[in-house]
Amino acid sequence: MSQATSQGPLLDVQFAPRLSIDQVEEGQQFAPKFDAHGLIACVTTDATSGEVLMLGYMNRDALKKTIQTGEAHYWSRSRQVLWHKGATSGLVQKIREIRVDDDQDAIWLRVDIDGGASCHVGYRSCFYRIVPHEACAAQPLVFAESKKVFDPVKVYGDAPNHTQL
Amino acid sequence: MSQATSQGPLLDVQFAPRLSIDQVEEGQQFAPKFDAHGLIACVTTDATSGEVLMLGYMNRDALKKTIQTGEAHYWSRSRQVLWHKGATSGLVQKIREIRVDDDQDAIWLRVDIDGGASCHVGYRSCFYRIVPHEACAAQPLVFAESKKVFDPVKVYGDAPNHTQL
Repeated sequence: MSQATSQGPLLDVQFAPRLSIDQVEEGQQFAPKFDAHGLIACVTTDATSGEVLMLGYMNRDALKKTIQTGEAHYWSRSRQVLWHKGATSGLVQKIREIRVDDDQDAIWLRVDIDGGASCHVGYRSCFYRIVPHEACAAQPLVFAESKKVFDPVKVYGDAPNHTQL
Repeated sequence: MSQATSQGPLLDVQFAPRLSIDQVEEGQQFAPKFDAHGLIACVTTDATSGEVLMLGYMNRDALKKTIQTGEAHYWSRSRQVLWHKGATSGLVQKIREIRVDDDQDAIWLRVDIDGGASCHVGYRSCFYRIVPHEACAAQPLVFAESKKVFDPVKVYGDAPNHTQL
């Protein structure tokens, strides 16, 4: 037990040591692999539509808080801070299901989002543009979403944009 | 034009330089961002079911080949080689759609897979285990797939397993 909330105490989450390939791939122990920067990649989808909303990264603390609270937490690589998604915008991601992949170096979150949008640019999904392929390769990107769900200026005000070139 | 195939010549794919946040986020130029290792993260979903199949990485060459050929290519970080997914197993991923995210540092592939399976362990998706959360946090992983689609020993023989501890 680590912290008390109105929903009751948060359960302590421990990660298992990685001992064998069989344990990691076929077992029931949660032994996530963090990279040299202490991060694990996380893909987040809309639990209802299945649409991929974003691809983010978590450190140990963000992953633990996500499991404990049922709300998605990430590590912001641009700001270098723990990032409770929706803390600024209100677009909190409520966890329906958490999955881990075969070698346990990636997380998949299936979430419900208040407000129906996830992307800081204002679109529903961060993946709002299509890259043409094969016979159409080398053509310009095509917008898959024609209209923003919200106006980023109204939601974020003059907060700095964290996209890095 | 770079290479001729039975389907005709492959179109040359160039990536645009990253000049401004507005260009990267709101524009129609494809200006993917590769990390310090020359890689970009890629989430791959089943185009029909929407299920997340895997999370992989591409270098510039893998991304270009994916766009040109309509079949998913990745960079294998464990083997350090260009990886035409399905070359060994036959489980080729045929591209239905390619998307890029807001800051263009992640790719989403929507694919059709021959044989209905993607994971080298034999399951349909690499994300075959659920991590319990909130009141069930700290419980063992739960298998979301009860049966393997194929027997990895029959498909891969005695090829080394590339999972790293």
